[in-house]
Amino acid sequence: MAKTKTAIYPGTFDPITNGHNIDLITRTLKIFDRIVIAVAPSRKKHPLFTIEERISLIKNSVSDFNGASTEPFSSLLVDYARKRESVAIVRGLRAVSDFDYELQMALINRHLDADIETVFMMPSQEYIFLSSTVVKEIASFGGSVRGLVPAVVEEALKEKFKNR
Amino acid sequence: MAKTKTAIYPGTFDPITNGHNIDLITRTLKIFDRIVIAVAPSRKKHPLFTIEERISLIKNSVSDFNGASTEPFSSLLVDYARKRESVAIVRGLRAVSDFDYELQMALINRHLDADIETVFMMPSQEYIFLSSTVVKEIASFGGSVRGLVPAVVEEALKEKFKNR
Amino acid sequence: MAKTKTAIYPGTFDPITNGHNIDLITRTLKIFDRIVIAVAPSRKKHPLFTIEERISLIKNSVSDFNGASTEPFSSLLVDYARKRESVAIVRGLRAVSDFDYELQMALINRHLDADIETVFMMPSQEYIFLSSTVVKEIASFGGSVRGLVPAVVEEALKEKFKNR
Amino acid sequence: MAKTKTAIYPGTFDPITNGHNIDLITRTLKIFDRIVIAVAPSRKKHPLFTIEERISLIKNSVSDFNGASTEPFSSLLVDYARKRESVAIVRGLRAVSDFDYELQMALINRHLDADIETVFMMPSQEYIFLSSTVVKEIASFGGSVRGLVPAVVEEALKEKFKNR
Amino acid sequence: MAKTKTAIYPGTFDPITNGHNIDLITRTLKIFDRIVIAVAPSRKKHPLFTIEERISLIKNSVSDFNGASTEPFSSLLVDYARKRESVAIVRGLRAVSDFDYELQMALINRHLDADIETVFMMPSQEYIFLSSTVVKEIASFGGSVRGLVPAVVEEALKEKFKNR
Amino acid sequence: MAKTKTAIYPGTFDPITNGHNIDLITRTLKIFDRIVIAVAPSRKKHPLFTIEERISLIKNSVSDFNGASTEPFSSLLVDYARKRESVAIVRGLRAVSDFDYELQMALINRHLDADIETVFMMPSQEYIFLSSTVVKEIASFGGSVRGLVPAVVEEALKEKFKNR
Repeated sequence: MAKTKTAIYPGTFDPITNGHNIDLITRTLKIFDRIVIAVAPSRKKHPLFTIEERISLIKNSVSDFNGASTEPFSSLLVDYARKRESVAIVRGLRAVSDFDYELQMALINRHLDADIETVFMMPSQEYIFLSSTVVKEIASFGGSVRGLVPAVVEEALKEKFKNR
Repeated sequence: MAKTKTAIYPGTFDPITNGHNIDLITRTLKIFDRIVIAVAPSRKKHPLFTIEERISLIKNSVSDFNGASTEPFSSLLVDYARKRESVAIVRGLRAVSDFDYELQMALINRHLDADIETVFMMPSQEYIFLSSTVVKEIASFGGSVRGLVPAVVEEALKEKFKNR
Repeated sequence: MAKTKTAIYPGTFDPITNGHNIDLITRTLKIFDRIVIAVAPSRKKHPLFTIEERISLIKNSVSDFNGASTEPFSSLLVDYARKRESVAIVRGLRAVSDFDYELQMALINRHLDADIETVFMMPSQEYIFLSSTVVKEIASFGGSVRGLVPAVVEEALKEKFKNR
Repeated sequence: MAKTKTAIYPGTFDPITNGHNIDLITRTLKIFDRIVIAVAPSRKKHPLFTIEERISLIKNSVSDFNGASTEPFSSLLVDYARKRESVAIVRGLRAVSDFDYELQMALINRHLDADIETVFMMPSQEYIFLSSTVVKEIASFGGSVRGLVPAVVEEALKEKFKNR
Repeated sequence: MAKTKTAIYPGTFDPITNGHNIDLITRTLKIFDRIVIAVAPSRKKHPLFTIEERISLIKNSVSDFNGASTEPFSSLLVDYARKRESVAIVRGLRAVSDFDYELQMALINRHLDADIETVFMMPSQEYIFLSSTVVKEIASFGGSVRGLVPAVVEEALKEKFKNR
Repeated sequence: MAKTKTAIYPGTFDPITNGHNIDLITRTLKIFDRIVIAVAPSRKKHPLFTIEERISLIKNSVSDFNGASTEPFSSLLVDYARKRESVAIVRGLRAVSDFDYELQMALINRHLDADIETVFMMPSQEYIFLSSTVVKEIASFGGSVRGLVPAVVEEALKEKFKNR
């Protein structure tokens, strides 16, 4: 009998996109038994959505997935991963991600806790160039983001930019 | 109860190095229950070691690992992975690997079989710049490769280059 | 008889440099019949020059070019391009540009409007490492930017940093 | 009245794929009036298809395109482009192409003939990771390349590898 | 008799890390006779440490090195280098540094003063993914930075984040 | 009084180009007192010029430089560097070089001999995209390589390709 294995999927998710969402989470759940989507406050000063809004959008988008849960976290990632008894941190490997930055963070996290692996997975090809930043840029000009984000996020973006 | 999960770790392994070896295999076995080290003939015309020698060197180096097995393969990787009932292909993500090539292969393998994920893992930092090619280059000039490869590979390299 | 073809050349141009300017515009006008230099407000909070100043500096610098016009734009780029009846968006491909970002934007723009192509062109080698950011950095320390920007921009930079 | 503009699209095309083919050629013909597909012998020792086979496969695949022609060339690319009265060399900008190599060739070609521009265009996202090399690798193992190459190339690949 | 050679090592050093510190400075002093560690105010709005604090932390960390001195500078780098009679600017070449940015700055500095070379050196492999940014991120969450920075910096970081 | 410092500049030099030549060697001699140009047999099967021809072309091209000498070497690079009492290995950092490969070799050489530093220097911007490979490609088609290589190499290339 194999042991139950949990992965942490950390990010800002401002907001969650189809590249993060159904896609990478589905794929992760083929390898791991549980995935904890861990929402960080934000490295930038002013996220578009509050952390409560971001968590709510994710929960709405992943409600059909068995084994997925969503939580805020604001401690050191490896401490949080240990607390959740995770064996791995999962990161999406997109063509637009900063690969060197990802390697750096993975090495630093290993330096801080040698027991937690970082595992890189690949979103669907159609989402491999998609980022939250570009989605917000399109929405801010009134462009359509249909097919790039879950329907609930599409609505939330419209609402956000209606008053601007 | 979680299902037993098998990963395929494909490569030429000409020869296996410490970056591939104890390191990445140990890490993979934290996530997966079994790892099949799948040795490909060689994309280049003249590998230094025959496929039998390469398999033998790997078997000698990983004999202590529960869950690891070593086999030759010469079919399409996804066909082989399916035959071994693997959920994933594991690739080491080294700073010297051709990242674009790895993304390309992972996307093509997904195109050929959408059920098999490619998972990228990271070797120890001290091995992140290590490749079989550089190990052979050092050995060919009589340089020491101690600490870069398992002891059995160190011996085999000395033997190979003794007669040159 | 071939149809008249218009290209949009979008950017912040804060300020225009010799890498953008005479060089890339001349080259674009070998391929296209008309080029519309489309000046975006600014992705950063505080551009050095106002949009009016930036447009004025460009107009002064490209006055000799038949077929070149300069305009502000603040809508979605593909909407603007369609309004101007352009067949293509032109981007300079510099060694210091974020190539992944350029690919991402080009793919997103195609997603939004499949009829508008993005075409990448290359500035002269002597300008291939030149950016507006580095020009401003040099000028802010009182260094000479002669040969890196049009004369009118050189003057404007001196004026800007005189009072700092 | 605008002048008729011709682009040269050089490559080895061993064999032509969907990333090169319908896709990039259609896009090029939106910008240029004519495209000359110029087939180079091969930088590698042993191409899979002879140059006659490669030209024939291209001609079969692009027969529906007005303005496209296919020819072998074995001189210096800029000399050939000048002979064909081209204003530009077109190159596809794939994520797997060697971007530095492309920049180098474009700069060298400009050094050799300042009148001929290199223009980079982007294939469809689904083909952005596709190369002739990977297509041949799949076919050599009996894998399906349907959707990756024109039907006539699919047949030719099957034929080639039948006798191996 | 060889002439005494001085190198300038410019940076923000907010704060100095082991990747900058003992390591790169020791290595530089094998090639050059003197090294001037030149501390720039900061390209970002709010450095964590004041320039006085940053200089003091460096002086404490490099007090054992013959030939090393530490100074603030706020002029154009090449002017400063000339004033210090340096033959070269030294930059660490880390895997996480922006290589294109480094090339750009080196070319611009050469454009401004052709007599001053930029020389790139490599920190120890264990520090090749280490940056001031990641060190601050770890410390801000109460994580241990022992072994990543000199002891005096470890203390200063604890003090800084105690009151946050 | 400073100690005399020698640098090793290793390469295949098949053939030496202006990017290697007057340029990088002049720059190196501003930092180091002596430079030993160390010519390796060739990593590829068939170099265009024999090692004797390559050394002769270099000697002809650098005869005016005080402090430069040219030699073949076929041992491990660090052993050779030690024998020549060098403090450093010098490598040109071109935009077309394989940066990851350079980092890998530098780290491996440090692993083999911690006393020898690798120092990266930058050729003139006009040569930053120039390689021996592209020079040979141009010459093989009868294109002019004037300004890209020393006059003696231009002659030698003409001679080589005359009989092909």
